[in-house]
Amino acid sequence: MSDQKLEAIAKALSKARSVAILPHLNVDGDALGASLALALALNSSHCQAHVLIEEDVPATLDFLPGQDLIKRSPEGRYQVAINIDNGDINRLGERLAVYQNAEIRLSVDHHATNKMEADVSYVDTGAAATGEIIHRLLTDYMGAPITKDIALCLYTAIITDTGGFRFSNTTPETMVIAGELMKTGIDFTNANKKVFDRISHAKLFLMKQTMNSLKLLFDGKLAVACLRWDDLSSFNAKIEDSEGLVNIGRNLEGVEVSLFLREEKPGLFKGSLRSNEYVDVAQIAEKFGGGGHKRAAGFSAEGDLDDIVKSLADAIKASLTGDA
Amino acid sequence: MSDQKLEAIAKALSKARSVAILPHLNVDGDALGASLALALALNSSHCQAHVLIEEDVPATLDFLPGQDLIKRSPEGRYQVAINIDNGDINRLGERLAVYQNAEIRLSVDHHATNKMEADVSYVDTGAAATGEIIHRLLTDYMGAPITKDIALCLYTAIITDTGGFRFSNTTPETMVIAGELMKTGIDFTNANKKVFDRISHAKLFLMKQTMNSLKLLFDGKLAVACLRWDDLSSFNAKIEDSEGLVNIGRNLEGVEVSLFLREEKPGLFKGSLRSNEYVDVAQIAEKFGGGGHKRAAGFSAEGDLDDIVKSLADAIKASLTGDA
Ligand SMILES: [Mn+2]
Ligand SMILES: [Mn+2]
Repeated sequence: MSDQKLEAIAKALSKARSVAILPHLNVDGDALGASLALALALNSSHCQAHVLIEEDVPATLDFLPGQDLIKRSPEGRYQVAINIDNGDINRLGERLAVYQNAEIRLSVDHHATNKMEADVSYVDTGAAATGEIIHRLLTDYMGAPITKDIALCLYTAIITDTGGFRFSNTTPETMVIAGELMKTGIDFTNANKKVFDRISHAKLFLMKQTMNSLKLLFDGKLAVACLRWDDLSSFNAKIEDSEGLVNIGRNLEGVEVSLFLREEKPGLFKGSLRSNEYVDVAQIAEKFGGGGHKRAAGFSAEGDLDDIVKSLADAIKASLTGDA
Repeated sequence: MSDQKLEAIAKALSKARSVAILPHLNVDGDALGASLALALALNSSHCQAHVLIEEDVPATLDFLPGQDLIKRSPEGRYQVAINIDNGDINRLGERLAVYQNAEIRLSVDHHATNKMEADVSYVDTGAAATGEIIHRLLTDYMGAPITKDIALCLYTAIITDTGGFRFSNTTPETMVIAGELMKTGIDFTNANKKVFDRISHAKLFLMKQTMNSLKLLFDGKLAVACLRWDDLSSFNAKIEDSEGLVNIGRNLEGVEVSLFLREEKPGLFKGSLRSNEYVDVAQIAEKFGGGGHKRAAGFSAEGDLDDIVKSLADAIKASLTGDA
């Protein structure tokens, strides 16, 4: 099952004297893990490879090995540049020049929306993480040994994009690869703890506010929670700190729909809707100028919080009653 | 790598006319998943097998297939009885007689502390879950096809005991087995959601109270939280509802030690201690008549909450300073 594109990428990398590895802006565990794994493998074989990023390494990823190969302000030219886990040229940010100035431009990604230009572009939408593709590239096409350090990077890439093997993108192949990586003796327990368990002070505060604000309507089938502008601004909260808070309501026993409102600016709300079994929240979001999927949708609304909640609740009530 | 005991167990089950499958009291996902998987396999081959339990199936496990094979008040005798995921005869509860009256008594478990008596007792402490052993028994020793229903039961057994492949008991073999089970097309995403994400009303209330009570001491290195008797009694909270709440403090950035106090009865506290990197909390717990491991320990204390917190904080402070 040899793939010509992966073979071409392996060949170009094997001959390269210098390689710039370019994960997408705001690196996550997959982008950085896959990039560091590749950098470690290339550097162990007479090639100078750097991972170029523009932001700090997130605290949840500070345990990843190979961080001495990360460069924040690139100088000079690289012979080969490889785009990692990124389907959008705008997400190369200020590193676009490095990519465009390289003699050879390569790209490895798993996003269905990928539209990167490259001399060789490999996209496998069946891979749960770009880390899986890098594992295949190193093992099957480059004959590179998977050291314990490389394994930890790839394992972290995989758990990040699969939510710890829980998301539906996880495949039997994902499990086999993870098992192979674990054989090297990596501290996978610590990787999971770092990636999934850590709570920032801002996050704890926002969780608390969300729980304290949570109200149940319609026999507990609708959960409504909100974060006010004061909550968000007082704690210097980042967007990531309020990510997933809509799930507190969704996971509560008996709840079918969870509505979460985040006051982005005074009087301006970003709404998230989630459902568990039968309500089509995309339809509800559309009524308020938003959209999304059946079980996850969003919208924006301006005005008084109580009014917004009331009109949303009215719209949701109909779909709850319809099925009850 | 054939095992004589597993072979003997397979032989006894293959010849059995009726089998009572006995998971431990207060079934969890491993005990019930492994039991139901075995029951489904046996019933599909001309044997009448029942899973006997004494409590309701937990809400987190209500999606498991084969529940029509569960009996709550057993009648008559079973030719074969098999103890599952249980190392302690007392955890058979009122079903002890069923076990003792069977012609043949078998036992399959993975607890290091196992001391069950049986005609054939198989204990594999290297298995992350009893579900792994049942998978091996069915596949390698009984030639039983792993149907989608059986696979869902075994997958649930495995994720329960490995915390979703995160605990250190997870092995490369665990990952390979899980991958095999996923190949049958099970809805593993839903299984994870049911087992890990569901929050009871009591749990949400206790999480909220824990977060609201949480205080940081010593530059944020010690987190202290408590649940008062009124909190616990007002909401009809079960022990399981306050499980894991000590981790809220432990997971908070910058925290080394998390102290969590639960007022079991007015004035009587059960304390949990967790540490992240270097503090030996077993030593601290011992000073208060308790014990445990380096990173997880517990104790009991009577008296005024503020006094208890003060003496604990003093003891913890020394170990924090010692390393700072
Ligand atoms: Mn990715
Ligand atoms: Mn078990």
